[in-house]
Amino acid sequence: MLLVTRDAATLVVDARYATAATALLDGPAGCNEMDLALVESSFEQAVAARLERSGPPGGGCILGIESAHMNVSQHEWFVRTLAGSVTVKPTRGLVEEGRAVKDLDELSTLREAGRRISSVMAQALGGLRPGLSERDVAADIDRSIVEAGFGRPAFETIVAAGSNTALPHACPSHRLLESGQLVLLDFGGMLDGYCVDLTRVATLGPPSDEAVTWHRAVQDAHAAALTVVRPGVSAEDVDSAAREALVAHGLAEAFSHGTGHGLGLEVHEAPRIGKRREPSDAEAAAPIRAGMVFTVEPGVYLPSRGGIRLEDDLVVTDTGYELLTNVPLDLRVV
Amino acid sequence: MLLVTRDAATLVVDARYATAATALLDGPAGCNEMDLALVESSFEQAVAARLERSGPPGGGCILGIESAHMNVSQHEWFVRTLAGSVTVKPTRGLVEEGRAVKDLDELSTLREAGRRISSVMAQALGGLRPGLSERDVAADIDRSIVEAGFGRPAFETIVAAGSNTALPHACPSHRLLESGQLVLLDFGGMLDGYCVDLTRVATLGPPSDEAVTWHRAVQDAHAAALTVVRPGVSAEDVDSAAREALVAHGLAEAFSHGTGHGLGLEVHEAPRIGKRREPSDAEAAAPIRAGMVFTVEPGVYLPSRGGIRLEDDLVVTDTGYELLTNVPLDLRVV
Repeated sequence: MLLVTRDAATLVVDARYATAATALLDGPAGCNEMDLALVESSFEQAVAARLERSGPPGGGCILGIESAHMNVSQHEWFVRTLAGSVTVKPTRGLVEEGRAVKDLDELSTLREAGRRISSVMAQALGGLRPGLSERDVAADIDRSIVEAGFGRPAFETIVAAGSNTALPHACPSHRLLESGQLVLLDFGGMLDGYCVDLTRVATLGPPSDEAVTWHRAVQDAHAAALTVVRPGVSAEDVDSAAREALVAHGLAEAFSHGTGHGLGLEVHEAPRIGKRREPSDAEAAAPIRAGMVFTVEPGVYLPSRGGIRLEDDLVVTDTGYELLTNVPLDLRVV
Repeated sequence: MLLVTRDAATLVVDARYATAATALLDGPAGCNEMDLALVESSFEQAVAARLERSGPPGGGCILGIESAHMNVSQHEWFVRTLAGSVTVKPTRGLVEEGRAVKDLDELSTLREAGRRISSVMAQALGGLRPGLSERDVAADIDRSIVEAGFGRPAFETIVAAGSNTALPHACPSHRLLESGQLVLLDFGGMLDGYCVDLTRVATLGPPSDEAVTWHRAVQDAHAAALTVVRPGVSAEDVDSAAREALVAHGLAEAFSHGTGHGLGLEVHEAPRIGKRREPSDAEAAAPIRAGMVFTVEPGVYLPSRGGIRLEDDLVVTDTGYELLTNVPLDLRVV
């Protein structure tokens, strides 16, 4: 937990991370202004003890808690324990908002990560062949991600073949790749703490007619979304552009997720590029800003038949966007 | 989200998982009694809509929510939206409690997983040599885990060499292994959804005197904890046994975490094998029961010098315990 007061910040860690956290705060890139507090009985207790020392005398302060990240049990503890001296007030998105626009150092890391993950994808597509299992391919990719200098894969690598491509979040299975199948690869890497995320599709041998049709539709949706990206348009504008392109192909119903998500310290962070969840959904309606980094990843999924998704990462510039990833978008025939 | 009522259960998933969830519920091992509901605007909305249809006419029902897993924002939504017809009541540990004692099928899977992860460890220890980086070793282990038939590693594989062994949760780095160093390997695998977890330590060449001393102390603590495991003793009894063995070696202060954690569908689940967090800590005081599966993993950590941890997995039997993992406990010299 992190406690931020008007003039200090305290990172609360448990004993397992004490040595690592001390090294981090004291290191060359450390935050020397940040205090470290060790958990004795619980994280909540450690925060409350620090609050007692740093709050105004006699209490009366307000403790904001991030409501999408604190659980009900922790919240109840704070309300009960601090009753009378501290008002607990749920807040929302303060951390996400502070992280949505990347600074130059972050962009430099993300550009390098984008270059490296693109190389891993080019290599992975070239290595596909019948007889390998989805898990074999995923294990090779995970190894290449580490060899490319990433600390680790950014999430569980997706390798889906044949009808498994109809599952947007497929788990690699022992199923063997066969000639004629579609193979979808979706993976990412974390470089110096920052995540990138990339999806491409190949066929083993000549593609079927329906695979070509789906791919063309998704490639159109991908291009349509990119066309509208610039500061000031809303996230839902970008999403709508992809969705409308799929309507023209009669595949709008087959696009079952949002068009993209922000990237940074987490592989899913602000901004969410999707339609409004309800009429008052401020996140989908908010204008995107220069320095935001997100994915564009339209897809179509036809249950038990197959699917296609094409995903790239971009940074919003003053006049449009710059792609961080660079792998040909065509339906790769291996 | 899962909504359980008196006579039905509904699994709520978003569209990305619709096809996979349908296949799961309809499959041979599926739960035919379970309904599926798809998210339209939000998970909370989908639960509320189902509740409206299945609750007693005129409302008046109680919705229990698992307070350690639902966030404050979701809870607020339910309280606000259901006000007047449904009482929202925080509950704690219902799911964990239902999962703490494993049935025979679960134990059979965990035994097989324990055998397989032990083989991976034996192979990994034998492959250590100076000049490999921590990340190289971790990538090889991750590959072996998949080759052994696991769906994936159960958590991020820990490979720590030299002074990094002083970090209980070290991340594999580009640091190269050197002769004379301690190397700690801590990894696990998920087999058919069930997790196992294993830690051993080796030295590259003859061990230092302090490494031998630490190792002997931890091996004593490991043995002392196992000696007391049987139905009816409390989790804190097991923890205390390990801790007292380290007192005898003057290393009690160097043991900075709990003695173990339950294993199952998650790599950390009930029971927690540790000391009481506060005098009324019911979890630490509760008796362990036959069929519970947990780790025993005492360790010592000397900042900037090094550390040792030895971890095995066991199932509690009617009279004691059965180890699920089987790798020699000695300080392996490679």
